[in-house]
Amino acid sequence: MTNIGIVGSQGRMGIALVAAISEAGQHHHGVDKGGDVAKLAARSDVLIDFSSPAALEATLDACVAAKKPIVIGTTGLEERHHYLIDDAARDIAVLQTGNTSLGVTLLAHLVREAAARLDADWDIEILEMHHGNKVDAPSGTALLLGEAAAEGRGIDLAKCSERGRDGVTGARGHGKIGFASLRGGTVAGDHDVIFAGPEEMLTLAHRAENRMIFARGAVRAALWLIHQKAGRYTMPQVLGL
Amino acid sequence: MTNIGIVGSQGRMGIALVAAISEAGQHHHGVDKGGDVAKLAARSDVLIDFSSPAALEATLDACVAAKKPIVIGTTGLEERHHYLIDDAARDIAVLQTGNTSLGVTLLAHLVREAAARLDADWDIEILEMHHGNKVDAPSGTALLLGEAAAEGRGIDLAKCSERGRDGVTGARGHGKIGFASLRGGTVAGDHDVIFAGPEEMLTLAHRAENRMIFARGAVRAALWLIHQKAGRYTMPQVLGL
Amino acid sequence: MTNIGIVGSQGRMGIALVAAISEAGQHHHGVDKGGDVAKLAARSDVLIDFSSPAALEATLDACVAAKKPIVIGTTGLEERHHYLIDDAARDIAVLQTGNTSLGVTLLAHLVREAAARLDADWDIEILEMHHGNKVDAPSGTALLLGEAAAEGRGIDLAKCSERGRDGVTGARGHGKIGFASLRGGTVAGDHDVIFAGPEEMLTLAHRAENRMIFARGAVRAALWLIHQKAGRYTMPQVLGL
Amino acid sequence: MTNIGIVGSQGRMGIALVAAISEAGQHHHGVDKGGDVAKLAARSDVLIDFSSPAALEATLDACVAAKKPIVIGTTGLEERHHYLIDDAARDIAVLQTGNTSLGVTLLAHLVREAAARLDADWDIEILEMHHGNKVDAPSGTALLLGEAAAEGRGIDLAKCSERGRDGVTGARGHGKIGFASLRGGTVAGDHDVIFAGPEEMLTLAHRAENRMIFARGAVRAALWLIHQKAGRYTMPQVLGL
Repeated sequence: MTNIGIVGSQGRMGIALVAAISEAGQHHHGVDKGGDVAKLAARSDVLIDFSSPAALEATLDACVAAKKPIVIGTTGLEERHHYLIDDAARDIAVLQTGNTSLGVTLLAHLVREAAARLDADWDIEILEMHHGNKVDAPSGTALLLGEAAAEGRGIDLAKCSERGRDGVTGARGHGKIGFASLRGGTVAGDHDVIFAGPEEMLTLAHRAENRMIFARGAVRAALWLIHQKAGRYTMPQVLGL
Repeated sequence: MTNIGIVGSQGRMGIALVAAISEAGQHHHGVDKGGDVAKLAARSDVLIDFSSPAALEATLDACVAAKKPIVIGTTGLEERHHYLIDDAARDIAVLQTGNTSLGVTLLAHLVREAAARLDADWDIEILEMHHGNKVDAPSGTALLLGEAAAEGRGIDLAKCSERGRDGVTGARGHGKIGFASLRGGTVAGDHDVIFAGPEEMLTLAHRAENRMIFARGAVRAALWLIHQKAGRYTMPQVLGL
Repeated sequence: MTNIGIVGSQGRMGIALVAAISEAGQHHHGVDKGGDVAKLAARSDVLIDFSSPAALEATLDACVAAKKPIVIGTTGLEERHHYLIDDAARDIAVLQTGNTSLGVTLLAHLVREAAARLDADWDIEILEMHHGNKVDAPSGTALLLGEAAAEGRGIDLAKCSERGRDGVTGARGHGKIGFASLRGGTVAGDHDVIFAGPEEMLTLAHRAENRMIFARGAVRAALWLIHQKAGRYTMPQVLGL
Repeated sequence: MTNIGIVGSQGRMGIALVAAISEAGQHHHGVDKGGDVAKLAARSDVLIDFSSPAALEATLDACVAAKKPIVIGTTGLEERHHYLIDDAARDIAVLQTGNTSLGVTLLAHLVREAAARLDADWDIEILEMHHGNKVDAPSGTALLLGEAAAEGRGIDLAKCSERGRDGVTGARGHGKIGFASLRGGTVAGDHDVIFAGPEEMLTLAHRAENRMIFARGAVRAALWLIHQKAGRYTMPQVLGL
């Protein structure tokens, strides 16, 4: 039996993780915000963190010190967080992802494929909807899907995003990837990737009914990650895509 | 037979208006950007303008001078344009609207009704998609639907809008009305008004297949407007809603 | 505190009802398939039955004998079940509905309104999706929405339904109301009412994230029903629509 | 310049084909229902037929006699029509397809890929909507997408379809592919392929704004087909998928 440590075990995702770990017949330990992550890392075989960007550095330090792999599902990460992850990945196995569900991982694969086949006359737009408590926009998953589209098309997402349209925006930029965010209710996560061409439209969409799918995927990833050597990993690797 | 004057007759909507006027068995005259609007107003029984905010003042002056009613479907209007319209409406009949279609006019009515029945635990979000040449966001129709929602709920849209979400936005404001805009392809106009409540969601949506529906509605409004006295009018009045 | 009796307390809806009754701070009793409904009725202030058409007659008899009101959410009812309900409603208060959620009840109201405003050139189609274990099609809610549309348009649903299209169907009948059913996954209940007009489309849709919304609505209806005299009631009455 | 012969040139698709051939800078000839197809075949370099299953045999005979390739976009074909096509394809190049659009051809490719990756716990449902004059259900495109899904999953569509659900259907069959058809308004063609898994859903969808996209795709296929030797071809080959 595997001991899985949860960073942020009292949060919404923390509670779902407890359920998913139990469903998978494994043990969990947890600390909440401000808890002793070093002790948690020492007692666990692998950690899962969906808590907050602010907590990431301490968590990574604890994992490196204890030589324990970690699955990071936290959203709202900035460039400096990715440097921290790259650093840690020299010593331990780290899987960081904007979305741990099977469906979204496959969706990203299909988006990459479609973007590779359609020319830039097909405008790409990414729409997401989440519950009203989400504090960042676009969602980590929307950005992950944008990366997949940009990869398929062979362009750099950072240079071709159109976000937060409001007011007199001018015409849409040719070859751009647009993002829009809806917030409301208790929506666990809806994502639409739209390829809008001349008089036709292709939409690849995912809808999560609740956050258990993310928790289950994270547990699946954690159980896979304990068998990997140091390095940085992604969800498609877990699923063999 | 009625003579209908088109301001901006070479634009996309202008061309659709020519077709719709012919379909309705009426005559049209037209001027393009920079044309002689005064002469157009003199020759027409009623004008239709979908051209641009910049052209509005001259068009209204011409209509007032010629004592001719006008249907205004231009989007991207600012507060000062509305003052100009109010002024003109003392002398002539003016119908200004963000959307001239029957379906959207009914949609606004249903949105007002739904917003009046659901409490503020139901978050209201308005999503729109248009072709990539549209230069303003949100669309005039989205704002019109937002106004209908705000009226139904008894709040002031100007004080409760959340637009252009991007980055660390914090949690959604309680009682706010959110807007998001997609751009791409040749989409004539899709609008979704979402009421996202606890574990359920109500969506009222409209989709236009092409701009002929707007042209037809504008012609219908124009033919109605010639029988009205000076004042400011709206689409629901045309349809008797 | 109110004692609420659940017929079919071990089924999916039964379990949700137990949770919703507890959430509402009330007591529940329950019997499963083949249990003693007479004893249940005697011990309860009001009953809720989402179980099966086959069980309905015995349940109604028990309620009438014990003079207890009942909320019926069972789907797949036939004409003879409605006669049984009408009979029972001479002695006790009965609320029978295809859907107990607030959102769907409002949706039906909006559908009636839209159908009353749009002429028969707007084709009405009703689409529903539910999990794969559902055994009847269309869903009770789809039929309820069809009734609302037919009422709004002043026609008889029984005479104007198009269901189960397959093969060479011929052209769509003018003025008909079409139904289509999707089944799959764990979908709690999606419903779309589509008004498809010439080159534009109005869609009024509801999506349930899980069955708790139906359980909560049923409990709300039950608590309202204990204050009503004998007769047959509907959800809009509970909500004062 | 290529001479393209249109069978059924006065029908809806016929008119769109005339426009698309002109747009592509090519010549067209046409015959309407009951016209002289032999003469048409003799005068054309390639034929396009979207007319009706009943006309197919005569059209194929004329093509074989004149040694001219043909693109067949007619829907509602039965097994015997496919035998006729196979026969003709020994002598001439024949491309038969349920859908000639670029977007749908890519969609079918993505559906095959997704079906190959997801296990049978993900229920597949195919939904389509077309204007009310369509006389067969499901659409040829829906069946084409169903074939792609069945291929991806390695099953036989003929043995695993669930169509026209109505009444007491029982639970959904495990591993089945469901079809549902909506009819109404002037919808040119919407298709959704839904993979409904445990608590998540993946939807791959296409929407045609008008039938010009089918006409353009058919012309593109015809221009490609004149360079092929005898045999039976498909749209993915035209696009190099």
